[in-house]
Amino acid sequence: MARTQGSHSDITGPRVRDAALRLFAQYGYAAVSMRQIAREVGVQAGALYNYTPDKQALLFSLLRGHMDELLEAWEAAPRPEGAVARLEGFVRFHIRFNLDRPEAIFISYMELRNLEPGNFAVIEAQRKRYESALEEILRDGQAEGAFSVPDTRLASYALIAMLTGVNTWYRAGGRLSIEEVADIYWDMVRKSVAIG
Amino acid sequence: MARTQGSHSDITGPRVRDAALRLFAQYGYAAVSMRQIAREVGVQAGALYNYTPDKQALLFSLLRGHMDELLEAWEAAPRPEGAVARLEGFVRFHIRFNLDRPEAIFISYMELRNLEPGNFAVIEAQRKRYESALEEILRDGQAEGAFSVPDTRLASYALIAMLTGVNTWYRAGGRLSIEEVADIYWDMVRKSVAIG
Repeated sequence: MARTQGSHSDITGPRVRDAALRLFAQYGYAAVSMRQIAREVGVQAGALYNYTPDKQALLFSLLRGHMDELLEAWEAAPRPEGAVARLEGFVRFHIRFNLDRPEAIFISYMELRNLEPGNFAVIEAQRKRYESALEEILRDGQAEGAFSVPDTRLASYALIAMLTGVNTWYRAGGRLSIEEVADIYWDMVRKSVAIG
Repeated sequence: MARTQGSHSDITGPRVRDAALRLFAQYGYAAVSMRQIAREVGVQAGALYNYTPDKQALLFSLLRGHMDELLEAWEAAPRPEGAVARLEGFVRFHIRFNLDRPEAIFISYMELRNLEPGNFAVIEAQRKRYESALEEILRDGQAEGAFSVPDTRLASYALIAMLTGVNTWYRAGGRLSIEEVADIYWDMVRKSVAIG
């Protein structure tokens, strides 16, 4: 985008998004006003409207931006040979990506209920793309004879929920590194879809 | 409790709790006022304070009541012989209990952040009791030589997150009955902790 470097939107945009993310995560979307976001950013409420038409657009932009980033990062991730290696890659990718973005993950689950129907449909489609990436690995593993999964759709939901749950308890500096956590989860995931 | 049948609190209490649960689940705790809850119940705001000292006490009472119910129901559930059978019982119990109470489950996760520290500590202790019940099954299974679980604490978090995730996608009347869903999840859980 050819935009004058350092223009108002360039400077304010990321700060508005950061402030909104933090406030939505702490108090919930419905409890946060545009005025409160402006105060957090240190601008007049009116200035926010240069950046976003309203609070719903801001929430949608945060959730869509998060899903864009997730999908791009996954598509850029290495694609090893074989479904087992790809599943391991998915597990480690998901845990690390999510632990790096606790507030975005939190509002992505919490605030789906506050999206207007058209916006919800867009985010829902993005979520399905991500779930389908995992489901494809599971189907490939079945075809290779490496996995036994009675219902690949449900298994993808089950595994994503299990992995996303790490965010609710993991604390940096605790007894386990992210790598150790990923090892333990990978052990369970690997077996959960194995034959037997 | 010897209380005159049909007293004001007896009648209003459950309606206040239902209304608060519904409104908190829909808009989030921080966005809902006592006035709004009173309107939903069809009483004056002042009348609410006969039932609860404030909104925080109401949230705490909802979350504690939910955890009391969960712990009592689990303790009353059959306790079959052997860790494998007990784990299967846990999986089926958890899925069914949660699907019966989508709003309580939703706010129990969502609104932990809005509990005052003392209240949070009480709910956290209840949650740990429930997690420990699962962890005990996993440890017994290890001792019996039926399970191979590198970290029983993490495995209990992982399995509870996986099972609770059913609430985010299950719709009654969809392609699968609760029983079929529980069968599929049990297949994954059983294997995830198996030796191999």
